[in-house]
Amino acid sequence: MTEPSADRDAVLAANAAFYDAFESQDLAAMGSVWSDDDDVVCVHPGWPRITGRELVMESWAGIFRGPQRLQFILTDEQVTVAGDSAWVVLDENLLDGPAAGVVAAINVFARVDGQWRLVVHHGSPVPNRP
Amino acid sequence: MTEPSADRDAVLAANAAFYDAFESQDLAAMGSVWSDDDDVVCVHPGWPRITGRELVMESWAGIFRGPQRLQFILTDEQVTVAGDSAWVVLDENLLDGPAAGVVAAINVFARVDGQWRLVVHHGSPVPNRP
Repeated sequence: MTEPSADRDAVLAANAAFYDAFESQDLAAMGSVWSDDDDVVCVHPGWPRITGRELVMESWAGIFRGPQRLQFILTDEQVTVAGDSAWVVLDENLLDGPAAGVVAAINVFARVDGQWRLVVHHGSPVPNRP
Repeated sequence: MTEPSADRDAVLAANAAFYDAFESQDLAAMGSVWSDDDDVVCVHPGWPRITGRELVMESWAGIFRGPQRLQFILTDEQVTVAGDSAWVVLDENLLDGPAAGVVAAINVFARVDGQWRLVVHHGSPVPNRP
């Protein structure tokens, strides 16, 4: 049995790999981050829910083909590990560009063969305060 | 050990209890739905994240004091049970009023003393199609 703090670190590393793949628009890396499961779920901010690995990966391919490059500062990360499941809630602070602002997000991970893989990403825009 | 389908049914019942408490504006019932844990997280659609049972319950009290009564049709519920954790992703179809529309939501539950209690609710508005 691994130490709880080792689990937390491993989950945070998987979470960081997700945002690294996003920032670098690396579709292969994004594919490794996500679980192979057909039940994976992704809600991009302001989008309807997308279900299933194939459609989720298509959505990332589309986003990466677009003109927008995003850069994140992640704040207030809160990690919960419960057996072979884990979730991270955090704020994605997007810098520059039309998407600048804060997105409240939750990322759910499942441990598969010792690897934490992303099974749910759900981000929602937080309107700017006036 | 309980049957997996019994677990799914119990999680769906806990999920239904959440929306029943919401619709009936029953703060005591809402308090029973949520975990007593100080790490609970709630993101109301378009709101910043709220952390901790006390602040989360305050937010529900504020919503229930407001003039708006919400009614939901829940669609496309997808349940995942993993040990003592579970999550439901679904669409909340809000009827009537200024909040009418679709909210994409995820509800994460933890099994505590045999009871599934809500630990994360995260809803995000899905803009209407033009």
